[in-house]
Amino acid sequence: MTFQVYDTTLRDGAQREGISYSVVDKLAVARLLDEFGVGFIEGGWPGAMPKDTEFFARARSELPLKHAVLVAFGATRKAGIAVADDRQVRALLDAETPAVCLVAKSDIRHVERALRTSGAENLAMVHDTVAHFVAEGRRVFLDCEHFFDGYRHDPAYTASVVSTAIEAGAEVVVMCDTNGGMLPSRVTAAIGELVERVGVGPERLGIHCQNDTSCAVANTVAAVEAGVKHFQCTANGYGERPGNADLFAVVANLQLKLGLPVLPDGCLEQMVRVSHAIAEIANIAPDTHQAYVGAAAFAHKAGLHASAIKVDPVLYNHIEPSIVGNDMRILVTEMAGRASIELKSRELGLDLAGHPEALSEVTRRVKDMEAHGWSFEAADASFELLVRSELPGESTARPFALESYRVQVEHREDGAVVSEATVKVRVRGERVIATAEGNGPVNALDEALRVALRRHYPALAHFELADYKVRILEGSHGSGAITRVLVETVDGSGRDWTTVGVHENVVEASWHALVDALTYGLSPAQIAAR
Amino acid sequence: MTFQVYDTTLRDGAQREGISYSVVDKLAVARLLDEFGVGFIEGGWPGAMPKDTEFFARARSELPLKHAVLVAFGATRKAGIAVADDRQVRALLDAETPAVCLVAKSDIRHVERALRTSGAENLAMVHDTVAHFVAEGRRVFLDCEHFFDGYRHDPAYTASVVSTAIEAGAEVVVMCDTNGGMLPSRVTAAIGELVERVGVGPERLGIHCQNDTSCAVANTVAAVEAGVKHFQCTANGYGERPGNADLFAVVANLQLKLGLPVLPDGCLEQMVRVSHAIAEIANIAPDTHQAYVGAAAFAHKAGLHASAIKVDPVLYNHIEPSIVGNDMRILVTEMAGRASIELKSRELGLDLAGHPEALSEVTRRVKDMEAHGWSFEAADASFELLVRSELPGESTARPFALESYRVQVEHREDGAVVSEATVKVRVRGERVIATAEGNGPVNALDEALRVALRRHYPALAHFELADYKVRILEGSHGSGAITRVLVETVDGSGRDWTTVGVHENVVEASWHALVDALTYGLSPAQIAAR
Repeated sequence: MTFQVYDTTLRDGAQREGISYSVVDKLAVARLLDEFGVGFIEGGWPGAMPKDTEFFARARSELPLKHAVLVAFGATRKAGIAVADDRQVRALLDAETPAVCLVAKSDIRHVERALRTSGAENLAMVHDTVAHFVAEGRRVFLDCEHFFDGYRHDPAYTASVVSTAIEAGAEVVVMCDTNGGMLPSRVTAAIGELVERVGVGPERLGIHCQNDTSCAVANTVAAVEAGVKHFQCTANGYGERPGNADLFAVVANLQLKLGLPVLPDGCLEQMVRVSHAIAEIANIAPDTHQAYVGAAAFAHKAGLHASAIKVDPVLYNHIEPSIVGNDMRILVTEMAGRASIELKSRELGLDLAGHPEALSEVTRRVKDMEAHGWSFEAADASFELLVRSELPGESTARPFALESYRVQVEHREDGAVVSEATVKVRVRGERVIATAEGNGPVNALDEALRVALRRHYPALAHFELADYKVRILEGSHGSGAITRVLVETVDGSGRDWTTVGVHENVVEASWHALVDALTYGLSPAQIAAR
Repeated sequence: MTFQVYDTTLRDGAQREGISYSVVDKLAVARLLDEFGVGFIEGGWPGAMPKDTEFFARARSELPLKHAVLVAFGATRKAGIAVADDRQVRALLDAETPAVCLVAKSDIRHVERALRTSGAENLAMVHDTVAHFVAEGRRVFLDCEHFFDGYRHDPAYTASVVSTAIEAGAEVVVMCDTNGGMLPSRVTAAIGELVERVGVGPERLGIHCQNDTSCAVANTVAAVEAGVKHFQCTANGYGERPGNADLFAVVANLQLKLGLPVLPDGCLEQMVRVSHAIAEIANIAPDTHQAYVGAAAFAHKAGLHASAIKVDPVLYNHIEPSIVGNDMRILVTEMAGRASIELKSRELGLDLAGHPEALSEVTRRVKDMEAHGWSFEAADASFELLVRSELPGESTARPFALESYRVQVEHREDGAVVSEATVKVRVRGERVIATAEGNGPVNALDEALRVALRRHYPALAHFELADYKVRILEGSHGSGAITRVLVETVDGSGRDWTTVGVHENVVEASWHALVDALTYGLSPAQIAAR
C-alpha cells in the first residue's frame, strides 16, 4: 500500500474562524489540491450543508481529477434506526463519490454524554454504516473522533470501535486527535499499543491531528514513522482553534526529510503556488512565516548571516528553496546593514558594490526611514526607486510632480456615499488639473491621477491596482499611530510590483505608495522590459 | 538541577521580519518575561548592537528581576588573537550580567568556509573564551551553532566542540538547530548518541530549535523527554524565517502534558496576558490561532460541537482554558447556526432561548450580513447591539441619528496634509452641525461626532479609540473589494469593546464602526454598569 495523502481543507479546514467558501471557491480549491498531487480530497458533508450537496453535484461534471479521489464526509447512522432509513446516510450515498469518510464516536464518554446512547449501540452504528457503504461499492474510511482521549480513558472500548470498523470492511481507520492535546512520543506509544491490542497492521490506520499543542505536524510525522500510511491534513493548517496539521509541512517533511515518496513526481515544486492560491481563495493573508511556503521561510535578516550567505548559501538553508517553489530572499532592515542591502540590490540587478558612497547613503536612508515606520521588506519597487535615486548615472527624472490634491468623502442625506478627488500635477512642463470619482478615497485619487497623466503616458491604461493593504502601526510611548500602506500593481504583461507609503494620514500614505507605483511602472527600465 | 527556561525573545527573536525594539521596549519585554517566571532572559548582543549595549547599561538600575537571571549574548573570540584583546569579548564583560551565552561554530564546514579558520583554532577559541568568562565569575552557556547539521556531517568534530566547552567550564552546552531542519525522532536519536560519545549527562545539554519543519515545539519537547533541562525559546515563536520554538507552547506542553514543574507557582495563568503584551510591544498582531494563547485557541465554530458543548464543555477542550489565562469562546458564524448564536448571547447575558422568533431573526440577519463581508467574531459589541435590536422589551432608541457627513483630506501646495470633517446629526430632537480636524479622515470624523454629541452625552469625554484595524476583503469573482473595519474603544473605567463596519468605502465602513462604538458605550446597560 502506498501513502494516502488525504486532504480535508474543504471540510474540517473550513471550520477555521473567518473562512466561508462558495461552491465555486470549493471547486477551485479542489482543482489546486489535485494539481498538488494529493490522493484524496474530502469535499464536504452533503446533506448537512446545502453548499456541500451542490459542490458534489457540480463536481461530477466540473471537476475532472488527475491524481485525487473525491471523498464525501458523513456520520455513522443515528442511534435506534436502520441505516437504510437514515436521511444523512442517504445524502452521503447520493453524493456519488468513489469513497466516503464516516465519523464515529470512539470515546465512551462522548457516546454516553453527547450521543446519549450505549457503547454497544455505537458499535452497531459503526458496523451497519460501514457495511452499508461497502455493500454499495464505496471505499470507506472511518474517522474515530476523540480517539486518543478515548483510548487513554478506556482503551478496550476505543479499540473495539477500531476492530468493529475493520471487520465491517473499512479500508482505513483514522485516529483523530480531535481536541489536539497530543505529543509525538504519545502518538508513537498509542499506535504501538493499539496495533498489539487489535492485531491490525499500522498500514490500516490513519492519523488526523489538530494543532492545540503546536505539534500537529510532528504528531503526523511520528504516526507515519510508526507505520501509518494514511494522513489527513489541511492546506496551510487551516482548521478550528489552532488548526489542523499543515499539508505542506507534513508532505515536505515526509518527502524531503524522511525520503518517503508521498507525492507524484513534479508536484512538490507546486507547493508555494498552491498554498498561496488557496490562501487567496480562503481570503486569508498568507502566513509569511509558514514553514517551507512562507515568503519569509528562507528570508535572512541578520547581518551576520547575510554576509556569510554571500559566501555559501547552501550552508544557511535547510533545503534548497526552489524544490518547494520558494526563493531565498534577503530582507532590507535596520539589523542587516550594508551586506544585506548590497545583496538585495544585486537581486534587483543593481550594482551598489561598485559605488560604496551610494551604498552608505542608501543604508543610511533605509535605516532612517525604517525608524519612522517604513518597511521595504515587501516593497521591492519602492526599494529599487530608492537605490536608483542614489546610483550615479541613473536618471532621477520623475514622470510627474504633485502640486496639491484634495479628496472628499460625502455621506449624503439620501444615504449615498460619494468619493471625489482632484489632483493638480506638473507633467512634462504642463500643469494638469483632473477630477475623478471612486468607490473610496484612495480609488478616487488613483482615478484622478490616471486622468491627469493618461495623455502623456498611455501605458498607464494597462496598470491595475491589484491589492491594497493597510496596517496601523501603534506609536509606542505616546506618539500618534501611523499608517503603512502597501500597493500591488499589475500591468497587462503579467508583471507585478509592490510599493509602500507611510504617514499618520491613511490617504497621504496611500498617495505615496500610488506615486511610487506609477513612477516605477513608467521608469525606463520597466518600459524597456515590457 | 531544575529546568532552565531560557528566553531569547530579545536577541534571536528580534531577528523576525518586521520587529524593531527600542531600548524602552526591550526593558518592558524583559519585565513581562520575568513576571511569566522564565529563568533566563537573553537581552541582546552588547558591542555588536549599540541599542543592546544601552539596554544592559539601563537594566542594571531599571530592571529588578524576581525570577530571571539576565544573560548577555556574544561570540567566541576571533581567530588568531588573544581572548583578552578581543573587543567584542570585552563589550560582553562590560555588560556586567551574571551569565553570558557564547555562540560557537560547531559544524566544521562553517568553521572552514564562513570563519575561514581551522578546526583546531575553533576549539581553542571555544576553550579560551569559556575559560575567560568562567575566570571572571560568570555562568557560561555555549550555543553550538548548526549543531545538528554539523553532527550529521562530522559527529567527531561537533562532539569535540561540546566536550571542549564542558571541560573549559561551560554550565550548559546548547544544541542549536540553526537551519531548523530537524524532526523529533532525530533530535532524540542525536542526543542519545552525543551523550554516549561525549560521556556527559543530558542535563548538561541545552536545546534551541528553529521552526523550519514546523516542529520547533515538538523538537524542544523531545529533547526534554530525552533528559535535557535547558531549553531556549522565544515569546510567540518570534524569530528569523518561520521563527523559533514558541515559549508558551513549550512551557504549557511540559507543565500541563508532561507534568514537569518548569515555571514558579502562579505564573502559568499569566500566559495569555504576557503573550499579547509582548505582541503589542513587538507591534505584531497576535496570532489568533496560536496554541494555548490565541483568541481562537479554545473557540468553537462548528454547529455540531457548539450544541454538544452546551452539554459538557470539558469534553471539547484539551485543557481548561483558564489555566493559561484564556477563555472558551463561541464564534458567531454562518456555519454555527442557532445553537452558537444562542450560546453566544448567553455569554453576553442576553436570553434569546426564551424568544425563538428573535433567535431566528438574529440568525437570519447574521448569516445575511456575513455573506456581505461582516464578521462578528471579534466584534461582540456590534453583535450585542444586533441582538438587543431584536429582543422584545429592549429599547431600540439610538442616542443620535445621522443626517449627513463630509470628510476632506487635502495635500496643500506647501506640503501640509489636512483632514477635516463635518457631521450633521439629530440628538434628542435637536439638529447639530459640527466640524473638526483630525490627523486622518477617520480621526476627523470621530472628533466631529464628539463635538456634536458632547453637550448631550458628557460620558463621551472618557471614551477613547484604542485600536483601529482595517482589512481589505478581496471580492472574489469580479465583484469589487470591500473594506472591514474593527474599532476598539475604551472608557475611563477600564472597560473596552469592539465594533465592526463594512463597506466598499473605508470611510463609510469606519463610520459604521464608530457609530456602533458610541451607541454601545452610551447604551443604558453600559451606563448602568459604569
